[in-house]
Amino acid sequence: MKPSGIITLLTDFGLTDGYVATMKGVILSINPKTTIIDLSHDIPAQDVAAAAFVLEASYRYFPRGTIHVAVVDPTVGTNRKILAVKSSDYWFLAPDNGLLQYVFHTEETLTVVEVLNKRFFLSQVSQTFHGRDIFAPVAAHLSLGVDILQLGKLSSNCDRGQIHRPLVSKNKIIGKVIYCDRFGNLITNVQATQLPKHEFRICVGDVTIPHLSQSYAEVEIGQPLAIIGSSGFLEIAVRNGNARQQLSVSPGANVTLKIADGP
Amino acid sequence: MKPSGIITLLTDFGLTDGYVATMKGVILSINPKTTIIDLSHDIPAQDVAAAAFVLEASYRYFPRGTIHVAVVDPTVGTNRKILAVKSSDYWFLAPDNGLLQYVFHTEETLTVVEVLNKRFFLSQVSQTFHGRDIFAPVAAHLSLGVDILQLGKLSSNCDRGQIHRPLVSKNKIIGKVIYCDRFGNLITNVQATQLPKHEFRICVGDVTIPHLSQSYAEVEIGQPLAIIGSSGFLEIAVRNGNARQQLSVSPGANVTLKIADGP
Amino acid sequence: MKPSGIITLLTDFGLTDGYVATMKGVILSINPKTTIIDLSHDIPAQDVAAAAFVLEASYRYFPRGTIHVAVVDPTVGTNRKILAVKSSDYWFLAPDNGLLQYVFHTEETLTVVEVLNKRFFLSQVSQTFHGRDIFAPVAAHLSLGVDILQLGKLSSNCDRGQIHRPLVSKNKIIGKVIYCDRFGNLITNVQATQLPKHEFRICVGDVTIPHLSQSYAEVEIGQPLAIIGSSGFLEIAVRNGNARQQLSVSPGANVTLKIADGP
Repeated sequence: MKPSGIITLLTDFGLTDGYVATMKGVILSINPKTTIIDLSHDIPAQDVAAAAFVLEASYRYFPRGTIHVAVVDPTVGTNRKILAVKSSDYWFLAPDNGLLQYVFHTEETLTVVEVLNKRFFLSQVSQTFHGRDIFAPVAAHLSLGVDILQLGKLSSNCDRGQIHRPLVSKNKIIGKVIYCDRFGNLITNVQATQLPKHEFRICVGDVTIPHLSQSYAEVEIGQPLAIIGSSGFLEIAVRNGNARQQLSVSPGANVTLKIADGP
Repeated sequence: MKPSGIITLLTDFGLTDGYVATMKGVILSINPKTTIIDLSHDIPAQDVAAAAFVLEASYRYFPRGTIHVAVVDPTVGTNRKILAVKSSDYWFLAPDNGLLQYVFHTEETLTVVEVLNKRFFLSQVSQTFHGRDIFAPVAAHLSLGVDILQLGKLSSNCDRGQIHRPLVSKNKIIGKVIYCDRFGNLITNVQATQLPKHEFRICVGDVTIPHLSQSYAEVEIGQPLAIIGSSGFLEIAVRNGNARQQLSVSPGANVTLKIADGP
Repeated sequence: MKPSGIITLLTDFGLTDGYVATMKGVILSINPKTTIIDLSHDIPAQDVAAAAFVLEASYRYFPRGTIHVAVVDPTVGTNRKILAVKSSDYWFLAPDNGLLQYVFHTEETLTVVEVLNKRFFLSQVSQTFHGRDIFAPVAAHLSLGVDILQLGKLSSNCDRGQIHRPLVSKNKIIGKVIYCDRFGNLITNVQATQLPKHEFRICVGDVTIPHLSQSYAEVEIGQPLAIIGSSGFLEIAVRNGNARQQLSVSPGANVTLKIADGP
């Protein structure tokens, strides 16, 4: 795999303070040819689970050889490790805190390295901004073709995170809301491939939705619906509305699929 | 006209959830040489009129051959059409919902195509995210030189939208606030070319502004003024302040120009 | 010094209204090869001091030959000057309002030019949007290699701003909070090089912090700490929390370092 020349950035730094720009300056100082794409910088502060989901929903849409850098890092300044991971299609750089949980559970033939080689860091490493001082320059060096094994030593005991799978029983599936987007759509951990073969209704908060929809247009404006969202997970939405507000449901809430009796 | 290599994106997706990044990944997977510029992603959710105005105010400043992609799409998942439009200087991609209203009223010699050819879509098209699955790949293919006529069939009955023109009578012009920007500036639908030749005063909300200003500095700090704004429309502003808040005026409100008696 | 091909943009325009995109369109129309990086566009409206700090914290991380454009400009439309400044490593474009205060106090061998040559402006210059009509095209021409002296005339009496230095006495240093970031970290004007050699405690708001920390992890979660931040200034933070909220302290507040008696 050759670097695509693209580096993506995913942080909780916001865009107000210039922190992200500084990372870009560091990258471009090392490799001026890089194309840098923001995945998101508005992950809620230190919300590793939200960052993991946003990464999961977007990383596969980038060209093979893209370097994905994710820095949501409540433990910066402790001795937590920094991981560089290579799959058959991508590189990933992230703190060792579960942020790569979906990568570890879905990508294959991974090389996992603990990043240690200071030759690829800025000459001065602050205690508070590893995004600028370690992640950005290491990513830039990877984009120049540096081998992942040069970054440090192979890591065997890293935090692969926990994917919370739905509980499946004979008559029902109990899932969870794992993410809420800007539109108030509630994204659950129930994947399209896990849906019951028979008809089912969906219970979330105080609402029961009678069946799965194929499109928003199947319900009236203002009505809740359940649909397979763009990332392949069951979503609860309100047509032209905000499900989170209207249903008073937040990430962590249960979403139960109750299967009707067979024919 | 040859593609400039630039694609602009205008959506109401926000930058928090990774949706826009995913579109960029799709574009770069098809044409890695593209320069992608964000027009805005913070259009109020499903506010087609605001998106139409932001597009109007910015698209002409891009190089000839730029592809402008606008996805504010409350009807995603219905059978609304997707339009590709070619003017003498630009390409446009948008849902058929009036978002291109200013383009239809100001650009000339348009080719309007209903986008239908699945060869230029992602192989799997979701019901909820045509931005990623249709708009992004079609734009990328246009940037590679695909002819607009290959995208589908010529469309004759699309939604060209309605431009709300000011009402002009002998002694007054009644316009409307069509957009409010981040600074609280109230942008009206009265164009510089439509202004009366004689002196006039401007009535908006409970305030009467005695005459048009040539610069903010003509009034004291904190005072309201009327000025021709950067997009060529009459704007109501407050010097170093927020007109929307101070005047309690929002988009949709009337702005009346009362013409003084001639000499 | 040759242009790096990179232009950074720092404004208070926000990203909602398309103003920043318009500046990018203008730049790319003149020099399609430019790489444009957003430093920040969410500087509080007309807050020149905040913009000056964000520029200071980030500009050095960009490659030599980068052009930094900063437009926080409460006096647009008055006869305030526009400055082009060349240091040994960078170009800067900004209104003459103190925004470049750190540049003037830290960069050496500066060429300071008042931007006057309309040949490098858009053909129509509005009264309200010099970012688009002057700053963007002038920056693009600089990136093409235009000499700074062609932009106007050498300027001798510009506003070099005031850097508020801490007050240093025998037993204490009185500094100020000069910036608060998204995480609520309070950044002071006390630089690492100015810290007392003896032990000291830090008083801010109603809180006394017993000593300087080397990392966040030295205190418990939820506890305040003082640390040298990523830009080399003393910062007051709360581990995994928000110091601004928890300590009820804002920019402008005093931060006093009280030196313990020597041994």
